[in-house]
Amino acid sequence: MLDNDDVKTAKQMDQDDTLSEFRNRFLIDDPDLIYLDGNSLGRLPKDTTPLLQHTIGNAWGKRLIRSWNEGWIEMPEVLGAKIAQLVGAQPDEIIVTGATSINLFKLAAATLRARPGRSGIVSDVFNFPSDLYILQGLIEFLGGKHTLDLIQSSDGIHISDEAIRNAITPETALVTLSHVAFKSAFMVDMAFVTARAHEAGALVLWDLSHAAGAVPVDLNGSGADLAVGCTYKYLNGGPGAPAFLYVRKDLQAELMQPMWGWLGAERPFEFNMQYKPAADISRFKVGTPPILSMAAVQTGVEMLLEAGMDNLRKKSISQTEYMIMLFDQWLAPLGFSLGSPREASQRGSHISLKHPEAFRITQALIESPPPAVRVIPDFRTPDNIRFGITPLYTSYMDIYRAMARLREIAAQKNYQQYSHERQKVT
Amino acid sequence: MLDNDDVKTAKQMDQDDTLSEFRNRFLIDDPDLIYLDGNSLGRLPKDTTPLLQHTIGNAWGKRLIRSWNEGWIEMPEVLGAKIAQLVGAQPDEIIVTGATSINLFKLAAATLRARPGRSGIVSDVFNFPSDLYILQGLIEFLGGKHTLDLIQSSDGIHISDEAIRNAITPETALVTLSHVAFKSAFMVDMAFVTARAHEAGALVLWDLSHAAGAVPVDLNGSGADLAVGCTYKYLNGGPGAPAFLYVRKDLQAELMQPMWGWLGAERPFEFNMQYKPAADISRFKVGTPPILSMAAVQTGVEMLLEAGMDNLRKKSISQTEYMIMLFDQWLAPLGFSLGSPREASQRGSHISLKHPEAFRITQALIESPPPAVRVIPDFRTPDNIRFGITPLYTSYMDIYRAMARLREIAAQKNYQQYSHERQKVT
Repeated sequence: MLDNDDVKTAKQMDQDDTLSEFRNRFLIDDPDLIYLDGNSLGRLPKDTTPLLQHTIGNAWGKRLIRSWNEGWIEMPEVLGAKIAQLVGAQPDEIIVTGATSINLFKLAAATLRARPGRSGIVSDVFNFPSDLYILQGLIEFLGGKHTLDLIQSSDGIHISDEAIRNAITPETALVTLSHVAFKSAFMVDMAFVTARAHEAGALVLWDLSHAAGAVPVDLNGSGADLAVGCTYKYLNGGPGAPAFLYVRKDLQAELMQPMWGWLGAERPFEFNMQYKPAADISRFKVGTPPILSMAAVQTGVEMLLEAGMDNLRKKSISQTEYMIMLFDQWLAPLGFSLGSPREASQRGSHISLKHPEAFRITQALIESPPPAVRVIPDFRTPDNIRFGITPLYTSYMDIYRAMARLREIAAQKNYQQYSHERQKVT
Repeated sequence: MLDNDDVKTAKQMDQDDTLSEFRNRFLIDDPDLIYLDGNSLGRLPKDTTPLLQHTIGNAWGKRLIRSWNEGWIEMPEVLGAKIAQLVGAQPDEIIVTGATSINLFKLAAATLRARPGRSGIVSDVFNFPSDLYILQGLIEFLGGKHTLDLIQSSDGIHISDEAIRNAITPETALVTLSHVAFKSAFMVDMAFVTARAHEAGALVLWDLSHAAGAVPVDLNGSGADLAVGCTYKYLNGGPGAPAFLYVRKDLQAELMQPMWGWLGAERPFEFNMQYKPAADISRFKVGTPPILSMAAVQTGVEMLLEAGMDNLRKKSISQTEYMIMLFDQWLAPLGFSLGSPREASQRGSHISLKHPEAFRITQALIESPPPAVRVIPDFRTPDNIRFGITPLYTSYMDIYRAMARLREIAAQKNYQQYSHERQKVT
């Protein structure tokens, strides 16, 4: 049941949206599928298809090995320079390479090597479990001499400045946090954390996976040392597209990562028997990059640059505020609670709604047969339904229809036929 | 100038070739381009194009995040099981993941951890410099307690059994070699090396990058412990397609690699805060795989299985013998020498020809304008021209025409306009 006044409001906001034309540049084949999971896998930009056709049929198929000299070998740096514009870095401070976890391993290992007298690694309870695993593995691999301390949250949504201050000590070698928390969307103050870490003599390593392309990031402006991030979420680079890493210019020749890959060598094609690292960001590359997946990164990044991160942020805030308004009005009375910060300045570009039946409600949103509209958010244990706002293609009507459908499912309890059993991925 | 009798012979051999139809299943757009670099980047199988179109347009574009539950998440294991059939392993002993260098790092690190009392790593002078770099980095990262000893070659082509025996000692933790050497194509006896290593209590880690799809490999039959390999050479998986790794079943739960990635966890989607590794081969996975590049691996592997490695080996030997015959007849008198073993049993599926002007001759082969036929081999420092024989699509006429062109260039010295300056990649 759509409420006519509310529909009018949503439609009007879409009409007033200066970014609305970007939606037409993505493949959207099913008008009754509301996709709010662009923070897990961004949609396919229409321009990516011919770009990949060319990469496959021409560059691989016809130019063959010569293509390495015709653009492939520079791709990590060329794409890195584009991403740098999105996150406030210099063109020679970012490369596209590996996977986020692998990049985290490289940069965390390099940091611990550069701070030999210090044993502390600080993260928080909001960080990706995948990031914590990498840190745990690194600690074990180095003989268990380091400790991993997780900053706690008092309310499950925020991390306080005080908790951050207390966690960073003269023993701290590395502070590593997600800039935007994957579950609550809490956005920690990059400049504040970086300043505290530097006061203590530690380096800071940011995970930008939920931040790059979602919120304006100013790595240089906040004095950040290191960062990693993924390209398949807000950057729309495609499933498992290679990740990126950032190393501040003055740290590049100092930090040494443990995976001495041939593409990180000073002169890879001389095939010397002894490794000598490149002096610049290239030393953080390892093996031959997956070109097809990497080529797909270009289109989405260029679209974000064209739209402008400040414009995207304005729309993102407006859309998350709109979603929270509908939550207050429709969903709070039905047993939902807000799992994200109310303060726009502390919030990324997604909203978590919590409900004891979150898992089965998510199934109902995704799987209800027509004529019901289908909504794709994702579930995050134990009770979060996460709705990604991706202002390049999310419309106000998307949000309106998704929240109306959520209200309907919760009010009618028509999630009860779904199983409690966890799927592989949602 | 083609010699009519020789042309007739080559044409007859192509007519008699029972695998000749496979050539039609690759994109070959230019009949005057002789591609003998399938050992660097395999050609594009025609069936790969629609497979990728479907992955891009349907799986990513329409099914979106749901595709992870519709085949993507199992892809490393499904493709690994296919590759296992090519290299004599069980389906649950191989996964497709990472890059060769990254996989080598993981497995070498896991081995050193499993042999704490031993300090020796043994490789040989024929191994990829990229493999040596990874070992050098690992040694440094672990505090310099290990040594890397390289088995020498007396003739630049072979490694003797005696040299192998002498190199492996009770101090040896790890023996790691390329099964087929990237430069000379020398093929070391996998069963012999493995037996010597096991007698000494060491583990063996094979690099199969120039072996998988090139020669029959019997990992299980030779008792091999560990292996890595790439999919973009003889497997025709596309530029930088993800690599594979093999861990013998009984070692999987024992060996612990240092990059504790979320996809290596026992239950990745429970998002537990503490890593618990999967008990099986999955623990060697790290981050989210690059799906577009990974999907492309399937077609080439299936074609090799359909052709059969024994049939491919027969054709490969016949073709390398044919090339050596033309070398003896035409090229030895022009200052070339053979950089590969004459014994077929000790030779992989490529041939190195050495010449003091190898670099400039390679440029002439690649770049001569029509009406000259263009030939793409690759150059390997200091004086090797490497010709890859990929029996799925290499014809006898390819070999005939390439060797005739090489003779012409060398005899007329028409490589002299090319520069000595090294290109980025050849």
